[in-house]
Amino acid sequence: MTRKPLLLTVIASSIFAASAFAAAPGNDPAALVKIRDTALASDWAYERLADMTDLIGPRLSGSAGEAAAVRQVADTMRKLGATVTLEPVKVPHWVRGVETGELVEYKGRPDGVSQRVVLTALGGSGATPASGLNAQVIVVRNFDELKARAAEVKGRIVLFDVPFDQFMADRGLAGPAYGQGSNYRSNGPRMAAQLGAVAALVRSVGGANYRIAHTGATRLDDNARIPAAAVSVEDAMLMSRLAARGPLTMRLTLTPQTKPDADSFNVIADFPGTDKPGEIVIVSGHLDSWDLGTGAHDDAAGVVGAMAVVDTLKKLNLRPRRTIRVIAWANEENGTRGARAYLESNKAKVETHFAAIESDNGAGRPFGMRMSVGPQAVKLFAPLQAVLQPIGAGTFRREDVLGTGDLSGLEKAGVPSFAPLLDTSTYFHYHHTAADTFDKVDKEDLRRHVALMASTTWFLANMEEPIGRWSELR
Amino acid sequence: MTRKPLLLTVIASSIFAASAFAAAPGNDPAALVKIRDTALASDWAYERLADMTDLIGPRLSGSAGEAAAVRQVADTMRKLGATVTLEPVKVPHWVRGVETGELVEYKGRPDGVSQRVVLTALGGSGATPASGLNAQVIVVRNFDELKARAAEVKGRIVLFDVPFDQFMADRGLAGPAYGQGSNYRSNGPRMAAQLGAVAALVRSVGGANYRIAHTGATRLDDNARIPAAAVSVEDAMLMSRLAARGPLTMRLTLTPQTKPDADSFNVIADFPGTDKPGEIVIVSGHLDSWDLGTGAHDDAAGVVGAMAVVDTLKKLNLRPRRTIRVIAWANEENGTRGARAYLESNKAKVETHFAAIESDNGAGRPFGMRMSVGPQAVKLFAPLQAVLQPIGAGTFRREDVLGTGDLSGLEKAGVPSFAPLLDTSTYFHYHHTAADTFDKVDKEDLRRHVALMASTTWFLANMEEPIGRWSELR
Ligand SMILES: [Zn+2]
Ligand SMILES: [Zn+2]
Repeated sequence: MTRKPLLLTVIASSIFAASAFAAAPGNDPAALVKIRDTALASDWAYERLADMTDLIGPRLSGSAGEAAAVRQVADTMRKLGATVTLEPVKVPHWVRGVETGELVEYKGRPDGVSQRVVLTALGGSGATPASGLNAQVIVVRNFDELKARAAEVKGRIVLFDVPFDQFMADRGLAGPAYGQGSNYRSNGPRMAAQLGAVAALVRSVGGANYRIAHTGATRLDDNARIPAAAVSVEDAMLMSRLAARGPLTMRLTLTPQTKPDADSFNVIADFPGTDKPGEIVIVSGHLDSWDLGTGAHDDAAGVVGAMAVVDTLKKLNLRPRRTIRVIAWANEENGTRGARAYLESNKAKVETHFAAIESDNGAGRPFGMRMSVGPQAVKLFAPLQAVLQPIGAGTFRREDVLGTGDLSGLEKAGVPSFAPLLDTSTYFHYHHTAADTFDKVDKEDLRRHVALMASTTWFLANMEEPIGRWSELR
Repeated sequence: MTRKPLLLTVIASSIFAASAFAAAPGNDPAALVKIRDTALASDWAYERLADMTDLIGPRLSGSAGEAAAVRQVADTMRKLGATVTLEPVKVPHWVRGVETGELVEYKGRPDGVSQRVVLTALGGSGATPASGLNAQVIVVRNFDELKARAAEVKGRIVLFDVPFDQFMADRGLAGPAYGQGSNYRSNGPRMAAQLGAVAALVRSVGGANYRIAHTGATRLDDNARIPAAAVSVEDAMLMSRLAARGPLTMRLTLTPQTKPDADSFNVIADFPGTDKPGEIVIVSGHLDSWDLGTGAHDDAAGVVGAMAVVDTLKKLNLRPRRTIRVIAWANEENGTRGARAYLESNKAKVETHFAAIESDNGAGRPFGMRMSVGPQAVKLFAPLQAVLQPIGAGTFRREDVLGTGDLSGLEKAGVPSFAPLLDTSTYFHYHHTAADTFDKVDKEDLRRHVALMASTTWFLANMEEPIGRWSELR
């Protein structure tokens, strides 16, 4: 899959060029039904998911896995006959090192005993000395408590012990629940550093407790890049309980390295439109992943879902009116450099973007789409919803701001943006952990995911009416 | 808690000796109700659970944690006024080392990429060279397949990829489900070694998949002590999928050490009976745990549940007719040397054991008791069941053989044996993993657990009728 000879690319492209694609039938419901049902009957996306996660695995920016994923996606899209452009992007190159934690002093500790802490460095973390550091731990539950205890922070390790609200996540509010927790991961270490902390820890942001650590990016100031890690939920609770008994001292070793920026690429694959080839509908996911798991839900599922849009149309010999642009974004996780590069290179061409989709919430069962369009545009999607409703994916919910990782720049510039509305109740069980692996993706849910992505992309690429640019309406 | 000065022991013992305990009221239902309700209102056991898991943590045989647990349990029982005996036991002393696995060659592997495998050495595993070993992997699903492919095994790493049947576990059959899987963990590596394998791996035996490895004992021949480890469920599946694509080569490093046997102890705490002090009712759990987690369910819960029997009776000023003997067994996990030592030292006194209880299935909600008693004895427990039924713990199920880790010798010798009948549907999610921690134990379930243990122990200690020795009836 990753080593397709050049000859095959040429043949595939030739077949594509020569094939008698049907004329675009606009938004004929019959075409939408065919797209939906073709997607529901195919495991092409599931097989590509296996290729990306089993053969490559983790794809952190700057890694060999990320480079392999660029090649794999480009090859796959070329095989489908798309025109592939690799857009260069300089990405952060942060490499995890040793990471250990040990509770070495606490009230009631028996002779010879210490407690091991499960933790993992946050992306962008600084390093401790190679031999580690020892410091007393101060546990806080929120930023107010950090401020109230500011005088105690200097020279200490701060632990932000903020529980993830799984109750919310179980009830369709995984996003806000994640936002509440990840706020401490993103900003807590920097604030602790500003108060003189020697290191910062956060409770892992996730709702399943199996002593695993959830990594993610943290925003440290360059002049105060302290060691920062996520501890498992269990260890955060343990440290809180021990700190409540008396002074708690921890030995922490984190040896990540920040290397010079590396070369990567946005993989951009165009499936040209018939009568409006200059108008673009983006369908996308992000190519990179964290380094602990194989990034199956986050975000191989999004990338293969986007690629499968073209596979589905090709199976049906359908050509869209507008150009469908599949993008596998570089570096969503720790920099969004890919999205920024695209925005920069397309700043004069934003108007040519009719709409954009990104799938970056895993492959849970899809319920429909979230969309940042003008209120007057909602009714335009009724024919699409009618086709998706029988598979439970007909809910199209307008939101003022989607704020997805890679589309937010385009969205702010006014491009109508879409993101699948999914079951995310278990997404944050695995997200950014070693457990985000192929087996977590349900084959049937992924088929539905592709049905939603392909139907919506097709619908957008063939709409008669303009959606209207939401920013102009605000 | 662990460092109580000697003076306090003396005072506590004196108070006990001097206190005006009520005469044993036999199996008056009013006493049983009081015991049940006192246990349901107390978090004494929960606090002891925190002491054992938070202050000490892992308690593998031969470790400082195990030694600390001996002291902690002995001190606690002395504070309760019991007569404590430390019975010496020589225990295996196996120490985990480095453990890493990496899939370094497989069909479709991109340049520069390898896949990390999450694994943990099995207790008793041999070691690889410090620099690891490289070998091709052969994946089998059962022993028949191993035999059929015996010629391929030499020089290879054998992976037993046997799924845990969580469907059974969800339906009250966690024990048999575990037995099916752990058979491969216990016996697979030895059989692979006999066929010339250089190492053996088993799929972790458990039903929750969060990329964690489940350790446990394996029975290797001393002359063929190959490296043996459990891989996470996810990694077993990944390796199966990659092996299906073509030859799969793994780099494996395991550096555990088997040291000379260490000194440990069964902690035996007698709460003497009034009119039949020479008759013994054992109530017990095991003191040791695996080294990855803090052994909260396995088996701190059993030990604190047994200790809390005495605490409950003491709170009520109740003295049993027969002697209640609390035992925290040494070395259940990797040798059952504690149980063997007790059986040896008590072989002439087996007849003095009226009954024995061991709790070693965690602290899930209790439904009642499993018991290996004669069929004619079942009806004797009706008054106890009547008291426990209102809290959902009135199901007493006779079984021919319980076969618990520590009681099986006494049971075979004819001592009527009891083990809590519990919700174990999630027990094997955590069992023998890093995730078996304090937070997994529900406070309310533990109260019920103590109510069951205390009521049953009291009932046994005060029964008028002999239960009858089941071995004589068979
Ligand atoms: Zn993502
Ligand atoms: Zn056990």
